Amino acid sequence: MAGKTAPTGTDPATSAASGSPETPARRLRADAQRNIDSLLAAAKSVFGTAGVNAPAKQIADTAGVGVGTLYRHFPQRSDLVRAVFQREVDACADAAPALAAALEPAAALASWLKRYTEFVATKRGLATALHSGDPAFDALPGYFMQRLGPALGSLLDAATASGEIRAGVSPRDLLHAVANLCLPVPGEGPAYSQRMVALLIDGLRYGAEHQPP
Amino acid sequence: MAGKTAPTGTDPATSAASGSPETPARRLRADAQRNIDSLLAAAKSVFGTAGVNAPAKQIADTAGVGVGTLYRHFPQRSDLVRAVFQREVDACADAAPALAAALEPAAALASWLKRYTEFVATKRGLATALHSGDPAFDALPGYFMQRLGPALGSLLDAATASGEIRAGVSPRDLLHAVANLCLPVPGEGPAYSQRMVALLIDGLRYGAEHQPP
Repeated sequence: MAGKTAPTGTDPATSAASGSPETPARRLRADAQRNIDSLLAAAKSVFGTAGVNAPAKQIADTAGVGVGTLYRHFPQRSDLVRAVFQREVDACADAAPALAAALEPAAALASWLKRYTEFVATKRGLATALHSGDPAFDALPGYFMQRLGPALGSLLDAATASGEIRAGVSPRDLLHAVANLCLPVPGEGPAYSQRMVALLIDGLRYGAEHQPP
Repeated sequence: MAGKTAPTGTDPATSAASGSPETPARRLRADAQRNIDSLLAAAKSVFGTAGVNAPAKQIADTAGVGVGTLYRHFPQRSDLVRAVFQREVDACADAAPALAAALEPAAALASWLKRYTEFVATKRGLATALHSGDPAFDALPGYFMQRLGPALGSLLDAATASGEIRAGVSPRDLLHAVANLCLPVPGEGPAYSQRMVALLIDGLRYGAEHQPP
């Protein structure tokens, strides 16, 4: 990054001199969006290693922007935590229709639950913040359920309809159960969570119409 | 109880007057043990409703003894918490051979896991204390695994040997998984934990040698 000398559009002076057709306002908005994207990706990474209370400078440095830019877009730490969380939830929800299109219903369900397990297992720092009682996070559990509930629900419905899993297990129950199975256990890593989630998935398959040979 | 008039040995005066063969020292020991039993039962109940930091007087009153007696037997709150926990763990472990003697292997396993789920679900206050970092509790997770690991292990082995569940799931993994599934979930009660544990049990049955009709 430091060695880059070509105009990248992040410097308004360079960009204006190159006669870009973008209006300054639109260019500013594009720059701002790029900064936001970089900050969210950086925050996700830094939160994962150093926790959600990591120094602002570490996040700004990782994003390649100044600390002032971080504070302009995310005045409070809770704003940044909330934005990272929502982006992660969105990505996980969006994986559901993609998997449903690519795999058989039960396999799509199992793949998505593994994806969701990874998401939860690597987001412990976020979970701690979310359960801190800070009113800034009040809406997030609702957002989580509102996005992931229907995503999982459609996969469960398809696998029930195909006879590969039994009916009667709610998306809400499963989302909570997997989240709890991702809580740290002494001496165990993410493989433990995945093993236990696989057992839950087999529990869904047990007693279904279509049994394995 | 209040209507009982026959000598019960709880009143040293009555006991001495009746010419009991007990020596005063032995009688004192029996009284002390009765007080300890009452205190542990009272503490279990009070911890369940008011948490492990409930006032000493509440526990002593429930046990029908003076606060001085409570402090004589359990000088620190951690002594009392530890004793209650160990007694509960012992009772849960002792249920395993009893169930194994009474039921088919997979049914005994399922019953024991339900019993263990109840134990964990109603012991949230204890769990908070155990994870408080107080060195007085350092040995308890070890005690938990040392007593419950073999209890569950023997049930798993028997159900695997009978072909009712698949092999390869460790007692340790299951004990942790159930404990995590007993963590409180917003808007859900103990029935949620039991539903999810039932799903885990069905996961053990899935793909076993003996499938249901």
